[in-house]
Amino acid sequence: MYTDVPGQFEVLENGYVIAVDGVIKELCEELPKVYDESTVIDHTNKLIIPGFYDLHLHAGQYLQCGTGMNKQLLDWLKDYTYDLEKDFVDTDYADKVYGRFVDDLARYGTLGSCVFATSSTEGTERLYEAYKAKGIRAFVGKVNMVRNAPDFIIEEVQASLDGLKYLVEKYKDEPLVKPIVTPRFAPTSTEESMEALGKIAKEYDLPVQSHISENPAEVEWIKELYEWSTSYADVYDKFNLYGETPTIMAHAVYLTEEERKLSQNGKVYLAHCPDSNVNIVSGIAPVKQYMEMGIKVGLGSDIAGGHKIQMNEAVVRAIQLSKIKCFYEENNQPLSLSEAFYMGTACGGEFFGNVGKLKEGYELDALVIDDHELYKERYTLLDRLEKFLYVGDDRWIVERYVAGNKITV
Amino acid sequence: MYTDVPGQFEVLENGYVIAVDGVIKELCEELPKVYDESTVIDHTNKLIIPGFYDLHLHAGQYLQCGTGMNKQLLDWLKDYTYDLEKDFVDTDYADKVYGRFVDDLARYGTLGSCVFATSSTEGTERLYEAYKAKGIRAFVGKVNMVRNAPDFIIEEVQASLDGLKYLVEKYKDEPLVKPIVTPRFAPTSTEESMEALGKIAKEYDLPVQSHISENPAEVEWIKELYEWSTSYADVYDKFNLYGETPTIMAHAVYLTEEERKLSQNGKVYLAHCPDSNVNIVSGIAPVKQYMEMGIKVGLGSDIAGGHKIQMNEAVVRAIQLSKIKCFYEENNQPLSLSEAFYMGTACGGEFFGNVGKLKEGYELDALVIDDHELYKERYTLLDRLEKFLYVGDDRWIVERYVAGNKITV
Repeated sequence: MYTDVPGQFEVLENGYVIAVDGVIKELCEELPKVYDESTVIDHTNKLIIPGFYDLHLHAGQYLQCGTGMNKQLLDWLKDYTYDLEKDFVDTDYADKVYGRFVDDLARYGTLGSCVFATSSTEGTERLYEAYKAKGIRAFVGKVNMVRNAPDFIIEEVQASLDGLKYLVEKYKDEPLVKPIVTPRFAPTSTEESMEALGKIAKEYDLPVQSHISENPAEVEWIKELYEWSTSYADVYDKFNLYGETPTIMAHAVYLTEEERKLSQNGKVYLAHCPDSNVNIVSGIAPVKQYMEMGIKVGLGSDIAGGHKIQMNEAVVRAIQLSKIKCFYEENNQPLSLSEAFYMGTACGGEFFGNVGKLKEGYELDALVIDDHELYKERYTLLDRLEKFLYVGDDRWIVERYVAGNKITV
Repeated sequence: MYTDVPGQFEVLENGYVIAVDGVIKELCEELPKVYDESTVIDHTNKLIIPGFYDLHLHAGQYLQCGTGMNKQLLDWLKDYTYDLEKDFVDTDYADKVYGRFVDDLARYGTLGSCVFATSSTEGTERLYEAYKAKGIRAFVGKVNMVRNAPDFIIEEVQASLDGLKYLVEKYKDEPLVKPIVTPRFAPTSTEESMEALGKIAKEYDLPVQSHISENPAEVEWIKELYEWSTSYADVYDKFNLYGETPTIMAHAVYLTEEERKLSQNGKVYLAHCPDSNVNIVSGIAPVKQYMEMGIKVGLGSDIAGGHKIQMNEAVVRAIQLSKIKCFYEENNQPLSLSEAFYMGTACGGEFFGNVGKLKEGYELDALVIDDHELYKERYTLLDRLEKFLYVGDDRWIVERYVAGNKITV
């Protein structure tokens, strides 16, 4: 089961997914004779679905999930986050925490993630290595920040760029784990640093990730910091950081008409982070409206503004928030299950290449779900998928494949 | 750790909980000499907290958790719920499903629950037995419904009352698992059936549970069905079903001033069901306002309008919804962690007697939580509790005690 378009599921019951060298060749009801000698793995009565792709989360905040959730954003950063991020200059500590982080991603079925590490180059290198060891996909970002945060986690512009370039050179040709240009957000950058980052993105043809319009105070701050700008997105755009190369922008709760237009260019992916937007009381992003405008919208757990690393929870919370938005605001419609699933699988997967769909020509990234006999005997395949998304956990996922390779957890 | 009042946690670090015959004798920092010969169970570096008490859920809907969540309420009942509830006349099926249901409650730390079974007397009997076998607390309700639902799950008034009385006589003297009078909700009752239920509640001194004001259409329907009533609560109150004996009313999203006043009598417990209220797009109950008026508010998972049986999820979702309510409506404040925890432990526990607090004179119902070393070395006890509530699951709960007895899962 998978979604090819947001509006509906593709369902093949009791069929075969045929993969050659990690790429899906065809889906069929009967096994063609030509594969008589091939290996057949029997997953009868289980669900085979794409993996999840998390478009926004902070590995350096993983330990902090679910703490300080009743603090205001700035106190939360000050009392918890920055202190924690600082410790990732210690590579032993980074190995311990990132190892657990990457294990948990795989365990919960997140086969690809676009991740912020911290500003530490050495620490970020350990995160690349943790992903490589596990064999799951990632775009790994060393966080570039040069002002408006405590001294102990910002860097001089040149040092920040040098660190980035070192990691880009080291990892740019990796098959699964790749670099991504990562200004934390415009307030911790300067025009100088963003201009340099835009150049690096273009020179190496690298994707970009950052934050945008998470809450109204932040949007106001942008106007003060960049007086010449016509919008938050305009700041990034000015420095070739908004869709010049594939770009993920997290949150996007308050995009103006101008920004929505800029986001339609096909290379911008908005990462909707439902739990985080509630926990930090940011507001509810109008993602259904964005999708109807042809803007690409994926999902992010936003660890640790969001507390759950499980992407099935993000799928569910996106639906729940869309229902609440309908309840309180006119001109909104709730997300359907297939739309939310599409966001977490097909749209997110697209950022990584041909993954996120169980379709000819796509790499075989897949999860095998085994649910309880009492469900199997009573419910349809789609009911069972919905149930997994709403109430399942890692124990329901019995196999994980990335590019046809089995991942061990 | 526990809450004695909603506004704060009581924390004893590296202390002892001393229980004699299942009742807490004292909490202390050093073990008094008099207990030198007593059994000491070492839970060093773990968290000891009260169990959770779920004030509203439907055992007969357990299989349905997380299916049909994008349906409208009436279609959902028609296409899924009623068909499922019907099957509990088959006692073998009831044993299978209820066995799993009660196992899961214990596994996730719900040590007491106020539960709707179905209208089947035989089926409901199996639910009593499942709870007894597990050794956790429950008020078990045979669902009394005599109209406005498909024929195959309603009963004649007399048959419904006879079934209730049979179960009451059989189980009224049980120590942990007790009967509760359970009209499904006023629309499926008649004046005749409610009058009889009110009399039974009074005669046997039984508590009562039902639904109230889940959504505006339902409130309108009540006005049509009971033209003489001044409010939804007034209908129950007329028949001694609103706080004459201890009473749980689920949802209460839209209580009028008159109903709020009726709910202040000290015997009415509102069961706030956050996930359900979102899934079915009912609205967000103003629970903080209710609590400030001195109304008792506990939490319900509302399986299967709610999808998660885990009460830590209900605690978190209550906080999240209170934040959203603040965002959209004036005159609201978010729930603090201690307030939401109090709802799910101390307030819910009160309905079962002296449980829900780790305090002298209370029965020892408790959970022992073991979290990861990386958390223990970094965070305070309260941070670790918050983290368990936000991201923990049953694997973090290493022991469960009910009245001092260890529960096996």
